[in-house]
Amino acid sequence: MPKVSQDHLDARRRQILDGARVCFARNGYEGATVRRMEEATGLSRGAIFHHFRDKDGLFLALALEEAQRMADVVAEQGLVQVMRDLLAHPEQHDWLGTRLEVSRRLRTDAEFRAGWAQRSAELTAATLARLARQREAGKLRDDVDPAVLAAYLELVLDGLVAHLAMGLPTAHLSPVLDLVEDSVRRRSQPAGS
Amino acid sequence: MPKVSQDHLDARRRQILDGARVCFARNGYEGATVRRMEEATGLSRGAIFHHFRDKDGLFLALALEEAQRMADVVAEQGLVQVMRDLLAHPEQHDWLGTRLEVSRRLRTDAEFRAGWAQRSAELTAATLARLARQREAGKLRDDVDPAVLAAYLELVLDGLVAHLAMGLPTAHLSPVLDLVEDSVRRRSQPAGS
Repeated sequence: MPKVSQDHLDARRRQILDGARVCFARNGYEGATVRRMEEATGLSRGAIFHHFRDKDGLFLALALEEAQRMADVVAEQGLVQVMRDLLAHPEQHDWLGTRLEVSRRLRTDAEFRAGWAQRSAELTAATLARLARQREAGKLRDDVDPAVLAAYLELVLDGLVAHLAMGLPTAHLSPVLDLVEDSVRRRSQPAGS
Repeated sequence: MPKVSQDHLDARRRQILDGARVCFARNGYEGATVRRMEEATGLSRGAIFHHFRDKDGLFLALALEEAQRMADVVAEQGLVQVMRDLLAHPEQHDWLGTRLEVSRRLRTDAEFRAGWAQRSAELTAATLARLARQREAGKLRDDVDPAVLAAYLELVLDGLVAHLAMGLPTAHLSPVLDLVEDSVRRRSQPAGS
């Protein structure tokens, strides 16, 4: 067997994740069979499951990657900006729907839930760090515990994900996100925002 | 065939809906087979599908019934109270999860979506009516369109449903709902709420 470089392994892993993401989006969690994963990634099941233990492992790796991308946006611009980006990029909705389909698994399968918790912890940590900086800068309301504000923003995010995944109309949601942003801001500033 | 009274038909319909609700909650949408529906309702498939066209029809009837119950609470106490009730009654979560499982259908199946829209319209109408009364009573903020406030509250409700359906912890959510309630209230009142 030829020696395989790390670059090659990374590229292969990337190829699998990108294909799997499309495959989940197109077929749903249940419908993303190994056969379809092979088609979507252009690789054999042997190659796919050399990198990921099973379909759950693939799904959780994608979810973690998504959370890390979101966390980067949160760090710079906050969780409301993540929501604005979701509104602006409807092509991501199919993948978001897959998140809803696994809700039963999250409730009933402890191992799967533990994998998901890693994803959630990543996003919550980024949100709390961002809120702490905003508070220090005097931009955050100081009458509510930042942990409550973080839980609030995550609840709205979950709502938006569900809304998009159900294919409901989104044209009216931009002022709703303005309201959400406003409701975590410092009050009673005489002028400016 | 004996003459069947309306009372009898209503009771039979009730029996089917109650059994189907449990069956969906226990097995999920896909897992709620006709065989399991028979077991859960104690009735034959012939009897079940005399009252409901198919599984979709049963599911949408349950969803509409739920929306009507919610609308009654909304009319008296508002949509935030609906959310507080959800937090207080975790035994309803299993059924809520079924709502998430059908998200793909809502996005891809126009007929199914139309059935669901009836449910949504019911809840939105009740919410808008409640908000109009609250505004008249001077309790609602008047710097934001009530339609935006209604969309905001429904988005948070969707988030809460997703949160509960995923079996995530809920102990910290009560102050979050306080924040949601506060964010639609009239501002700058010198005293009282």
